[in-house]
Amino acid sequence: MVEPKILPGFIEFSPSEQAQFKKIKTTIAKNFELFGYSPIDTVVLEREDVLLAKAGGETEKQIFTIEKGEKNMCLRFDLTVSFARYVASRENELAFPFKRFQVGKVYRGERPQKGRYREFYQCDIDVIGKENLSVKYDAEVPCVMSKSLKEIGIENFKIKINNRKVLFGFIQSLNLGCDYNEVVRIIDKFDKIGKENFVACLKDLQISDENCEKILNFIEKSGKNCEKIEFLRNLNIASEDFNKGVEELEEVLSVVKSFGEEDNFEIDFKISRGLDYYTGTVYETFITGYENFGSICSGGRYDNLAGCYTNTKLPGVGMSIGLTRLFVLLRDNNLLKFESKSSIDVLILTMGEYCDQAVKLAEFLRTNGVRCDNYFDDAKFKAKMNYANKIGVPYVAILGEDEIANDYITLKNMSTGEQQKVSNNELIKIIK
Amino acid sequence: MVEPKILPGFIEFSPSEQAQFKKIKTTIAKNFELFGYSPIDTVVLEREDVLLAKAGGETEKQIFTIEKGEKNMCLRFDLTVSFARYVASRENELAFPFKRFQVGKVYRGERPQKGRYREFYQCDIDVIGKENLSVKYDAEVPCVMSKSLKEIGIENFKIKINNRKVLFGFIQSLNLGCDYNEVVRIIDKFDKIGKENFVACLKDLQISDENCEKILNFIEKSGKNCEKIEFLRNLNIASEDFNKGVEELEEVLSVVKSFGEEDNFEIDFKISRGLDYYTGTVYETFITGYENFGSICSGGRYDNLAGCYTNTKLPGVGMSIGLTRLFVLLRDNNLLKFESKSSIDVLILTMGEYCDQAVKLAEFLRTNGVRCDNYFDDAKFKAKMNYANKIGVPYVAILGEDEIANDYITLKNMSTGEQQKVSNNELIKIIK
Repeated sequence: MVEPKILPGFIEFSPSEQAQFKKIKTTIAKNFELFGYSPIDTVVLEREDVLLAKAGGETEKQIFTIEKGEKNMCLRFDLTVSFARYVASRENELAFPFKRFQVGKVYRGERPQKGRYREFYQCDIDVIGKENLSVKYDAEVPCVMSKSLKEIGIENFKIKINNRKVLFGFIQSLNLGCDYNEVVRIIDKFDKIGKENFVACLKDLQISDENCEKILNFIEKSGKNCEKIEFLRNLNIASEDFNKGVEELEEVLSVVKSFGEEDNFEIDFKISRGLDYYTGTVYETFITGYENFGSICSGGRYDNLAGCYTNTKLPGVGMSIGLTRLFVLLRDNNLLKFESKSSIDVLILTMGEYCDQAVKLAEFLRTNGVRCDNYFDDAKFKAKMNYANKIGVPYVAILGEDEIANDYITLKNMSTGEQQKVSNNELIKIIK
Repeated sequence: MVEPKILPGFIEFSPSEQAQFKKIKTTIAKNFELFGYSPIDTVVLEREDVLLAKAGGETEKQIFTIEKGEKNMCLRFDLTVSFARYVASRENELAFPFKRFQVGKVYRGERPQKGRYREFYQCDIDVIGKENLSVKYDAEVPCVMSKSLKEIGIENFKIKINNRKVLFGFIQSLNLGCDYNEVVRIIDKFDKIGKENFVACLKDLQISDENCEKILNFIEKSGKNCEKIEFLRNLNIASEDFNKGVEELEEVLSVVKSFGEEDNFEIDFKISRGLDYYTGTVYETFITGYENFGSICSGGRYDNLAGCYTNTKLPGVGMSIGLTRLFVLLRDNNLLKFESKSSIDVLILTMGEYCDQAVKLAEFLRTNGVRCDNYFDDAKFKAKMNYANKIGVPYVAILGEDEIANDYITLKNMSTGEQQKVSNNELIKIIK
């Protein structure tokens, strides 16, 4: 006998949790489709050379590999690499801008620890252009995400937005004489390490007190979004890149307003997405009251999706939700919107041998869109009712001798305990 | 630059195919839920000891393994093993009968060849009892599948049904003096090898001419289902097992009739499911006119799902569709029911700088359930129309100077070329 265990670092949910997780996936997907994003599914096992061409740093070390001599097979560690490969291999066949969403599992050799999984769902949307892509999509993408988060019941959250041209332009304007990437790396850690350590890290780079102060003032700038744009303009930085960034940020916020989503957006000059390949707008999303959990939905604008696979320039903008991790957060904090109850609306029980009638009733209900189930096992009526209670079904329909003889159904409301005699059609009305 | 290729033996679909594949998955899942089956998702990477405990024969050789010393990780080769492990590890928490469906990818180290994939979707439903499970579920499971196949547009098919107790009871009654499993193995190959080779194989087992004739008469028995049951009764075989099998077969067909699905069912005494672990009812499904393709949906009744993981007896019945393979069959033979067109209903194009109005129109449409998209890129109007044609969208809504000034929309029907002036509300009516 082998113990029925799963591997460390892996996670599986109970049936009622799974029903809720599926509802989240379905709801999000439906919303993406409403916005014209196509569902794309890519292979989970990729060629090692394809994966390594776009991997880098920490990610590369976390790749699971099936060794097959020259043709090693690797489990994808995110959905972006697969997507880049997909677009590059079909660039002549696709219509651009190409908008896709994908909900799929990815694999990482993480050290098993709370909140880190080796197999988890990512949920990505991206818009890809050929040569060019309007900055208006930098507004659409987070607005789609914002609307999706609301649909799954997350009411209070902020999408924090920045532009890397603004961030880099500002840092360059200080003439710090050190590696700007290092400065960005430190800014990225600000929330984790706190102000004191932050300043200490900057000083390690020989940055003057005055400049430390300027950087602090910049990243901690508070106020309304329009005030922050005003603040940037007043810095009077004579950098083309910086000013392009400010313009982009302003346009994105203007289109976000057209989408009616401005209340969920907040400019935050600390947001940099580390050393990722983003080149313009960047986003992170925080649930109000759960900021410590980290960003639940991040992304940004990139200049070129698939430079390692094709010479065609494919600029894009995308965001990604770590869906498994988000689900655990929602579950553990009672934030799940969808009912954890039974997936059926009514359970049909018979008292006696009325299988034919019970199946026909079930078929009638299903034809009318009612999710229902027959309980077929021979069991005492009490055992059948115990089953109904255990699955949490809201209604039980009972067929016995009297019901069959007089052509009605006894319908029991499982939360109130009330019973009533109903016809087939009344049953449908009550349940709907 | 790395060539953006996928591994040999793997398959990926074009965006329009993907939309159809997703529609098939969604439709099937919705139907399963209507029948009270819960969506269950299990890990793709399993512990090697867990997987090998239930694997066997050919399957075992096809497992992909990630070597990690003592804790090798293996890619699941079907959904059943994961499911058995899931049920065994939660047997005290689940309500039985436990009905689940799962649509997920599985992995096999097949030699790359036409119609065989190393990564493909399986779509399974199973009902599991604790200690006992009514044979009526042996009718429900294929009826759910039958209805699902019709929902995805497969009109003409037959679910062939048999009972292994009947098959083994019959063979035993002949007192052949050879290994009965060998005889079943040969019967399983009948359709592939033809009658002549079939008889030759039987003779190799030293089976007499008379018995060969009897076996042939048995497996080739034609007629209506009720005639076949009659035929079994008239064999007068004094075996408890055989007679139990006949009773089960009769009850299954009776419940299938209650479900209104009898026209799609055909008793076929050749169906044995090889040397699988089935113990009673067995099924295979063939699309009329595409019988050579093999069974598209198979399964059966088993005595014990998880004997290698728990001492609790968990009898069940289930069926599985090889969804990727079925999709390719449907695609290649123009049998796909769902539209391969654009996933949106209307594309909004502007002539001039009317982004705000275009986004607000889109939001109004989406609130009313219309899937739509804004085209944001700067492009000549002709290029925008080319995009509309390429994605195959049925309607284009145009917003220009005159439209904005006089508060209407120009709606173009892309298949007829007709244009008309409409209000927001008229637009919704036309599209719906």
